[in-house]
Amino acid sequence: MNLTPIAHYRSPLREKFGCPRQSGLAPALAGEIVFESPYDNPDAWRGLEGFTYIWLIWGFHANHEQTAWSPTVRPPRLGGNRRLGVFATRSPYRPNPLGLSSARLGECRDGKLIVYGADLMDGTPIYDIKPYIPYTDSHPDAAAGFVDESPWQELEVVLPEGLALPEGALEVLRQDPRPQYHRDPERVYGLTYGDREIHFTVSGHVLYVQSVTPSR
Amino acid sequence: MNLTPIAHYRSPLREKFGCPRQSGLAPALAGEIVFESPYDNPDAWRGLEGFTYIWLIWGFHANHEQTAWSPTVRPPRLGGNRRLGVFATRSPYRPNPLGLSSARLGECRDGKLIVYGADLMDGTPIYDIKPYIPYTDSHPDAAAGFVDESPWQELEVVLPEGLALPEGALEVLRQDPRPQYHRDPERVYGLTYGDREIHFTVSGHVLYVQSVTPSR
Repeated sequence: MNLTPIAHYRSPLREKFGCPRQSGLAPALAGEIVFESPYDNPDAWRGLEGFTYIWLIWGFHANHEQTAWSPTVRPPRLGGNRRLGVFATRSPYRPNPLGLSSARLGECRDGKLIVYGADLMDGTPIYDIKPYIPYTDSHPDAAAGFVDESPWQELEVVLPEGLALPEGALEVLRQDPRPQYHRDPERVYGLTYGDREIHFTVSGHVLYVQSVTPSR
Repeated sequence: MNLTPIAHYRSPLREKFGCPRQSGLAPALAGEIVFESPYDNPDAWRGLEGFTYIWLIWGFHANHEQTAWSPTVRPPRLGGNRRLGVFATRSPYRPNPLGLSSARLGECRDGKLIVYGADLMDGTPIYDIKPYIPYTDSHPDAAAGFVDESPWQELEVVLPEGLALPEGALEVLRQDPRPQYHRDPERVYGLTYGDREIHFTVSGHVLYVQSVTPSR
């Protein structure tokens, strides 16, 4: 099957670094779904405004080149040192590199949908949008294998006096954007968030924002 | 993006007629995910057995030919007489004909996954399998627009004396497989279920199984 993007995603997160590891982890993080022609016809999403959440099926377009398919991957949640089957994880490196995310639906206007909490980066191609229907999609008590066994540790975010950041940016920082094998408290990381570049260090479970500069 | 099937679905439902309208409506209905080479390597789903549900992203391969894309569709749930945007429904006739279904995971063995409750028909190509993770996928209290407004009416199923049917078949019949514009109580329908052909009529909210014969 050959897929054509129906839309592209616009987000303040312009790089993979900082993208939430799953949807819902940064619930205030806003993004826009901008439709491609001819799907920018508002008739195509008539009735969608009655749904709290929508599904996005999208492409992992920022994957680095890969030579061969691997049946196993190392989930960041397990510290990168245990291999699990690719179909038992949400890894981007999959035989068909499709992503699946639920996002909270905001306004529908000007050929765009505003959504909250999605884990897509800026420029992501979107192939399908579906309404979220709890009776068929929601299983609150489902067991979740290695995800249940390895809870994610959030960070406390400390800002320099007088500095403020949008709530979406704070949520992203709290999720600890560092690669799992990085543990150097001296290392300064740079996170692009919209027109800002946020510089930070992490020591233990505290993230210290060092400075915020205009992004390049 | 070009997708290649990683697996195909095997179900007693060999035609579109009778397929549940969403996953979960026929929870005892069993099916098999049979992997294609090289994805039939059990390493590829190592760790999946710890999850209660899995996501299937699949293709609506049984769509009849269509000449042009339409921004609106007529959901069966609304009696087929109200038009909604295609992205506000789970209609098979979408710009990229991808289906999304959660299925309860049974055994993993012999290069196959047994699942329950899926709404896929026999022969459906599957493009991706992902673990169901409640913290990101489950929104039990989400509003569901026209789905909330139009509850589905289940049928009572009456069998001839001495006849039994598998629970999965009974669940399929209770969901009322008829097209929404059919209301003729004399009309005899034939539903293929595995090696059986089930003949039935419907009067009001009661479905009468008339006979069961070997399927062709």
